Amino acid sequence: MTQQTLSPTPRSTIRRGKDRARTDRAELYAVLDAGLICQLAFVAGGSPIVVPTGYGRDGDTLYVHGSTGAASLRTAAAGAEVCVNVTLLDGIVYSRAVFHHSVNYRSATVHGVARQLTERAEKLAALAVITDHLAPGSWEYAREPTKLELAKTAVLALDLGEAAVKIRSGPPGEDPDDLVPARNGSAWAGVLPLRRTWGEPVACPELPDGVAVPAHVTGRADPYR
Amino acid sequence: MTQQTLSPTPRSTIRRGKDRARTDRAELYAVLDAGLICQLAFVAGGSPIVVPTGYGRDGDTLYVHGSTGAASLRTAAAGAEVCVNVTLLDGIVYSRAVFHHSVNYRSATVHGVARQLTERAEKLAALAVITDHLAPGSWEYAREPTKLELAKTAVLALDLGEAAVKIRSGPPGEDPDDLVPARNGSAWAGVLPLRRTWGEPVACPELPDGVAVPAHVTGRADPYR
Repeated sequence: MTQQTLSPTPRSTIRRGKDRARTDRAELYAVLDAGLICQLAFVAGGSPIVVPTGYGRDGDTLYVHGSTGAASLRTAAAGAEVCVNVTLLDGIVYSRAVFHHSVNYRSATVHGVARQLTERAEKLAALAVITDHLAPGSWEYAREPTKLELAKTAVLALDLGEAAVKIRSGPPGEDPDDLVPARNGSAWAGVLPLRRTWGEPVACPELPDGVAVPAHVTGRADPYR
Repeated sequence: MTQQTLSPTPRSTIRRGKDRARTDRAELYAVLDAGLICQLAFVAGGSPIVVPTGYGRDGDTLYVHGSTGAASLRTAAAGAEVCVNVTLLDGIVYSRAVFHHSVNYRSATVHGVARQLTERAEKLAALAVITDHLAPGSWEYAREPTKLELAKTAVLALDLGEAAVKIRSGPPGEDPDDLVPARNGSAWAGVLPLRRTWGEPVACPELPDGVAVPAHVTGRADPYR
């Protein structure tokens, strides 16, 4: 059974902004579940590479997928170390000082070695998790993958054992001197929140007349909550 | 003078989804200017690390900043290779098949060796660029950095010479077989757009009565356009 707290390793220990570090595993899950895409980093030929990709979480496993022809997936699949980051930007923090400007955010970072799934049932289950994350309801609604499609899809599993969560929220942290009216005390300061909502669904041009937008699309909850 | 097209190196050549690759330098600028935060990747102790951070662009230079105490900045500053990605998620693509589900996005990736700025005027100019990007208007409105604050801030410059842009837009790309009514032709397919807007500004609790929200905050254009 996995521990309920995030027990940091040297590289997952947050040194800067310790007050922003969270140690509850539930907060890791919350950030990963609220995000939509992640950034996957790995080393190729000695150089760092970072690529955006979809993902899904099941318990303490993060799944990412991609074409079996993708260089990024091949590298990550070859037992190399990866680092995954999911960041949700929640707002811009306006301070009385340029130096104390900041952003409100929730960020989760995972370190580990990704394992490529090879067994059909395990791959299908992982793809269902990824689909449920990016497009909830589609796994049941859309056509399931053929054998060929499944063969073309590489699925990687990453254990969430080594992870860090960092969150900033609330008003600017000011230099007390700036609050004095003689300084910048009468300047405005605060937070401009970033809101995310789904727009109106845009039907595929090849859709026959009379096909209604299904409830799993029209009723989808707004993201990044 | 920098070339007007993105001339790819082996690692910035897009191999998967070539139809999504863009080669116009203006598209690189557009993606970087539309984003708000980036993911900065580097190698530390042989392992990949990716961290989210703010940035700004001036011509063919990308600036990132952070505390001089931050391990990520110190590593990147030490002449090590970095990779920066900015990804804007524009919508979820619902296909008739699970396999052809996708996302609409704009993504820019930059490879290079970051240079740490040491000269005061150059650092201030770069911080103005970063501030103008994250909080337009704040550089003129808020208190400027003190000598000590400037000393605490590391600023890195990354040349945009080696970069790649990938964009997906539009309806799902379907398997023609799925369009036949006997298959999934009567299933709904299309795009659920992701909209981003600024919410109502939240004033700092320590703000004296009667301080109006300045125009550069109330009038800020919605992000990710």
